[in-house]
Amino acid sequence: MGNRGHSGQGLESAPCHTGWNLEGKQIMPLWGGVEAGGTKIVCAVGTGPDDLRADVRIPTKTPDETIGRIVQFFRRYQENEPLASVGIATFGPVDSDPNSPSFGHVTTTPKPGWAHTDIAGIIQRELGMPVGFDTDVNAAALAEHQWGAARGIDSFVYLTVGTGIGGAAMVARTLIHGLSHPEMGHIRIPHDRAVDPFAGSCPFHGDCLEGLASGPALEARWGQDANTLPVDHPAWLLEAEYLALGLVNLLYVVFPQRFIIGGGIMQQPNLFPLVRRRVQELLNGYLQAPVILNQIDDFIVPPDLGNRAGVLGAILLAQQAASREKNSPSSTGSRT
Amino acid sequence: MGNRGHSGQGLESAPCHTGWNLEGKQIMPLWGGVEAGGTKIVCAVGTGPDDLRADVRIPTKTPDETIGRIVQFFRRYQENEPLASVGIATFGPVDSDPNSPSFGHVTTTPKPGWAHTDIAGIIQRELGMPVGFDTDVNAAALAEHQWGAARGIDSFVYLTVGTGIGGAAMVARTLIHGLSHPEMGHIRIPHDRAVDPFAGSCPFHGDCLEGLASGPALEARWGQDANTLPVDHPAWLLEAEYLALGLVNLLYVVFPQRFIIGGGIMQQPNLFPLVRRRVQELLNGYLQAPVILNQIDDFIVPPDLGNRAGVLGAILLAQQAASREKNSPSSTGSRT
Repeated sequence: MGNRGHSGQGLESAPCHTGWNLEGKQIMPLWGGVEAGGTKIVCAVGTGPDDLRADVRIPTKTPDETIGRIVQFFRRYQENEPLASVGIATFGPVDSDPNSPSFGHVTTTPKPGWAHTDIAGIIQRELGMPVGFDTDVNAAALAEHQWGAARGIDSFVYLTVGTGIGGAAMVARTLIHGLSHPEMGHIRIPHDRAVDPFAGSCPFHGDCLEGLASGPALEARWGQDANTLPVDHPAWLLEAEYLALGLVNLLYVVFPQRFIIGGGIMQQPNLFPLVRRRVQELLNGYLQAPVILNQIDDFIVPPDLGNRAGVLGAILLAQQAASREKNSPSSTGSRT
Repeated sequence: MGNRGHSGQGLESAPCHTGWNLEGKQIMPLWGGVEAGGTKIVCAVGTGPDDLRADVRIPTKTPDETIGRIVQFFRRYQENEPLASVGIATFGPVDSDPNSPSFGHVTTTPKPGWAHTDIAGIIQRELGMPVGFDTDVNAAALAEHQWGAARGIDSFVYLTVGTGIGGAAMVARTLIHGLSHPEMGHIRIPHDRAVDPFAGSCPFHGDCLEGLASGPALEARWGQDANTLPVDHPAWLLEAEYLALGLVNLLYVVFPQRFIIGGGIMQQPNLFPLVRRRVQELLNGYLQAPVILNQIDDFIVPPDLGNRAGVLGAILLAQQAASREKNSPSSTGSRT
């Protein structure tokens, strides 16, 4: 059917989202991305890591003020170039189930004013274009898969260790979305109180992984900001122990081809080698995969995209939303 | 293309694997299933739970003797009715990666004589038909999804708690296969040695979930077979604690729509209610999913297919293998 010449069907069989302008030149579509964090929001326009045409940082204030500024940024951009869609990668927890009535909402966050905010719905109505939506961690994992440390891989786990611990996992090239997005930071691990009497900092679970190994947990345990702890401080051996216990648990469930670990805490230069060695020790030869036994430096790796992963993932969410819109029987404006 | 009448193409567009015999009657294809356990092997022929036409139990002896008897069972059956393919659901660990040179092998099992046995390859060569292959736990999960407690659900976790603890997870209707199949029994959980000084029974990890909560762990801790422990024995409260810690960890990673838990230990009548309550307590309100908060009896459930799940899953593996064979450009005899 694609060979019937210059009919309408010929146009439809062209690559997804590509159009022609009035002079007959091909127009590449542009997407908008929003990475919404607890303290700041990054908005950008582009098509990928080598083509981010505009970006802006907005402090995270009230939902009204903040979402207003996001909408304003994209409206102004559209005065020059049209956007096909926008993707939102946000702090959670969120409702990312497209079949749920509260899809696109931030749900039970303790962040003042933001609980139950319909961030995707408001932006979709204000801009009148398809809006993609997921957690910041899922979006960053998508971007690492498309352009970064997980290129060409079918299954991987992406973890971020910073003010919290978040995780995403791709299985058979699909991100895990069950009843909701994963909350990997809250898994429970062994905690020997004789070695580490710290009770943990998680308000829900005390000594879950996040409660033992996030930045705030390190600060509460050692009485100083994690960034100021020297390289030879015993904090890092304990941190490697907890992270390795977390990785091993994820390994036994997902058995990914690779772990990508980002976040501020992982900037500590000795932490990757310590975690890798401890993972091998904890497995104790049970898993005979060569990549774990002999190439662990390729198995547990830092991200490639650094702090741009979130907003690049948001741009991928925008692409997905435009794709769904194009393939859906109903027309513009729907949020899925 | 399916409406062109009685041409060859018309036959090819009929439902997969259905054929016509010489009198023009439709023949439903038949599949063989092998569930290989550590002590016995079940072979069956059929199309589903309401149509198991023949089955046999074979003790698990040496690979030569045992595989010989499996091949003999299917050869004899084929003297009357042809089989389209055979599926093998086996104890592990196995290599279930179709792209691996050792696909279809049992790998590092401590079972005498069975390590590195090419069970799928031998059966495929002897019977000359497509052979499907996966772990017993993955196969049982497939069967529960097709015919049992996970019908109509996109994501679930299937656990079996008996002589070992094994687990499978389906995400977006696809079983998790990463570098290899999951080994969920070996996740690490908190273990308070002041409450339970038992060191754990896992030869690799001591007090992993399997080392604390499998049948042999119960027997070693309490000095008697788990089946003989009375309903009000403190063993069951501790067992519920460990299983709930395991479920909560799986929940935070996979966030499934349902947990299905089978195996001999789960026959203890009070165990399901104890586990359900403890899961809710451990989550402590962090996950606001109504099914967890209000319908936990529908969230953590026993299997529907009982001890037939493994062999029924093997029949599904056979169907998949026949499907792949039919759709592959090469012809009969390949093992994927």
